[in-house]
Amino acid sequence: MPCISTCSVRSLTYPSVLSANRRAVRVSANCNSSVPRNENFGKLTAGYLFPEIGRRRREHLEKNPDAKIISLGIGDTTEPLPRPIAEGLSNASLGLATREGYSGYGAEQGMPPLRKRIGEVFYNNLPIEADEIFVSDGSKCDIGRLQLVFGPNVTVAVQDPSYPVYVDTSVLMGMTGSFDKSISQYKGIEYMLCNPGNDFFPDLAKCKRTDIIYFCSPNNPTGAAATRSQLEELVAFAKKNGSIIVYDSAYARYIEDDNRPQSIYEIPGAEEIAIEVNSFSKYAGFTGVRLGWTVVPKALKFEDGSPVITDFNRVMTTCFNGASNVAQHGGLAALDEITGVPAMNELVGYYKTNAGIIRGEMENCGFKVYGGVNAPYIWVDFSHFGKTSWEMFAEILEKTDIVTTPGSGFGPGGEGFVRISAFGKREDIMEACERLRKTFKK
Amino acid sequence: MPCISTCSVRSLTYPSVLSANRRAVRVSANCNSSVPRNENFGKLTAGYLFPEIGRRRREHLEKNPDAKIISLGIGDTTEPLPRPIAEGLSNASLGLATREGYSGYGAEQGMPPLRKRIGEVFYNNLPIEADEIFVSDGSKCDIGRLQLVFGPNVTVAVQDPSYPVYVDTSVLMGMTGSFDKSISQYKGIEYMLCNPGNDFFPDLAKCKRTDIIYFCSPNNPTGAAATRSQLEELVAFAKKNGSIIVYDSAYARYIEDDNRPQSIYEIPGAEEIAIEVNSFSKYAGFTGVRLGWTVVPKALKFEDGSPVITDFNRVMTTCFNGASNVAQHGGLAALDEITGVPAMNELVGYYKTNAGIIRGEMENCGFKVYGGVNAPYIWVDFSHFGKTSWEMFAEILEKTDIVTTPGSGFGPGGEGFVRISAFGKREDIMEACERLRKTFKK
Repeated sequence: MPCISTCSVRSLTYPSVLSANRRAVRVSANCNSSVPRNENFGKLTAGYLFPEIGRRRREHLEKNPDAKIISLGIGDTTEPLPRPIAEGLSNASLGLATREGYSGYGAEQGMPPLRKRIGEVFYNNLPIEADEIFVSDGSKCDIGRLQLVFGPNVTVAVQDPSYPVYVDTSVLMGMTGSFDKSISQYKGIEYMLCNPGNDFFPDLAKCKRTDIIYFCSPNNPTGAAATRSQLEELVAFAKKNGSIIVYDSAYARYIEDDNRPQSIYEIPGAEEIAIEVNSFSKYAGFTGVRLGWTVVPKALKFEDGSPVITDFNRVMTTCFNGASNVAQHGGLAALDEITGVPAMNELVGYYKTNAGIIRGEMENCGFKVYGGVNAPYIWVDFSHFGKTSWEMFAEILEKTDIVTTPGSGFGPGGEGFVRISAFGKREDIMEACERLRKTFKK
Repeated sequence: MPCISTCSVRSLTYPSVLSANRRAVRVSANCNSSVPRNENFGKLTAGYLFPEIGRRRREHLEKNPDAKIISLGIGDTTEPLPRPIAEGLSNASLGLATREGYSGYGAEQGMPPLRKRIGEVFYNNLPIEADEIFVSDGSKCDIGRLQLVFGPNVTVAVQDPSYPVYVDTSVLMGMTGSFDKSISQYKGIEYMLCNPGNDFFPDLAKCKRTDIIYFCSPNNPTGAAATRSQLEELVAFAKKNGSIIVYDSAYARYIEDDNRPQSIYEIPGAEEIAIEVNSFSKYAGFTGVRLGWTVVPKALKFEDGSPVITDFNRVMTTCFNGASNVAQHGGLAALDEITGVPAMNELVGYYKTNAGIIRGEMENCGFKVYGGVNAPYIWVDFSHFGKTSWEMFAEILEKTDIVTTPGSGFGPGGEGFVRISAFGKREDIMEACERLRKTFKK
């Protein structure tokens, strides 16, 4: 966009407050402001994983306009909302047109009945109170807000591989150094390797102490759900080191094994060292409706003894205005004991069946397969093919028109793997399995 | 909460990575983590303004349990949603229960038809394209995200008084020094005084250059809407200094004077130096539904020539997952030319009539009154009473059971003023006026 005339500095009566140096920069840069770019943004080398996958998918479609693409890439829900939950949203919407049903700003922390109900459904008999539960517009957003609470001067550990948002938000907040291409890691982040060799649980004896430990179980992308004894070990490690665990349990309701906790607070004492984030996205099909929550126990304290909950509450009230009241009523409907909870369980069951089908088919093809039992993700090991994750992603897309997610997009520890998501319509899952079988079965 | 047993460091086989010093701190602090508190949070001396007002209101009610409080404090909408808009929300909700109407993750930047429609309604004939408009869950949240884009190493100016979120988020992001109690200002922030003496427009000749300038028009709290020539002056000032303006036009549709622009982009060249944030909250009664937008023009560049929109898009995709799809359909309904826009205009008209009534009554009482013409806020000057804003707030609450907002809560330049919000039910506004008349009319 040419800006020759508008860009020239106007003749004004204000005394200049720019140094000669700065002005020179500005004029030579033509139209640029003099505002320095936040250097943390420059550290992010590639786009966020899923937009990049979207780009490659579009490219594939341009080359193959008749391709019937099946997307098992981004873990996006496909099944319609259960009727009672949609009616919860709808009734709240129509209520807003009435004097009795209208509500404006709500508590930024969420509607008290919803906070209470989340406590009853997810933290029954655990040492968590309703006022420690903050309702939000989703886990991804809450992770960003948690990073703001921690600030740039903390150290961070993540499982490797892991959901990219932990690392990317750490980079944006300035907790890291630059990206080291030779090892595909950001400087300053502790990558805790999780692979078949260690049952997808990090060898903590080899992990450096960090202030914050992001831990996701059931894990995205590996589908591994940590056992009780593994989580006991993790909590003990954090206590010994004085670390704070940010425990992402967004897939907890996919766990079917009693020996694998659905909440970190099932581990005694975890409320002194752990925050937990969770979401309605994958339980109630709310990926688009947007509703999640974060638990910050009052017992969790910074080094100076100040409660973390105070600062998290500050962020929630200063940089956030509460989740949509409509979505919150949808959340209440989803947690209704008679109608909502069974409908949620059915929805989770549907995707779990998908996961079992995919897992079975990949095993049938002779691949090494992980996950897909207590999680909606199947983690397939292609490393013995001598191909990278992106090469395997490209081959699957090329040969079967199926979009997956390259494991290396989740961290260097994911290299050689591909993640297949079980979120899809049953007929697409069946069709995808048939294509995979035809292509890869020996 | 006692934690004697769980808090003691367990005997583990991991090699200790804590220095003896750190461990000592931890043990003596009893149960605290070793994670340092983000020092920026400690700089915020008091709670966010509106929770503090809520606290005082509760105190008043405890002392006077029979008081019929009328709240003209926080600017919260009270009128039910117009029927066509509520039906837009409801239809989208029920649609989510169908195969055709279901949607999961949407574009984080918003639904394309909504971005387009916002462009048509609010930026008609202005140099703004749909892909420069980012739909969000509200302006307050977008301001937080903008601060993350800018990072801690920029300088910031705000109107004084102004909406507290600009300053508070700047403090949280680390752009400021500590709070200087003697002048009620944070070090490092440029407070641009706006008062009756300068027609509520800063004397820019006296203002220091900063990287970012937050400017709100119609202003919250003063109710002043800047004229075209004032905004031309502001844009020229920003261009000369290479600053970026963050223009908050959340009340723009309350403007009735053609000489006062509803968008900063009405000023030629502003798209090279200004971001604009806006919201459905005060137009469609969406304070609880949560829907807003931010415009980041492609022509706006950092010093190094990189487009600001790239980094804002990065934050939107990394720390956010889009506004609720239900709310976005509500936004489309609100912008329907036949049903939605007239309903929005009627709603805005209702609150503007309220503003006129309050303004008239306060003038009738003999006070110096500002705002309330092109804005839903009335800014009353009590400074000649020799009382502070908080004292006047307390006196009004004590004598009339009306909650207002102390002007000093918006910055030191608001001292001596009280803000009265026109968001309320008509009968409450009438009742409030009667109480004010009885108490203050001489």
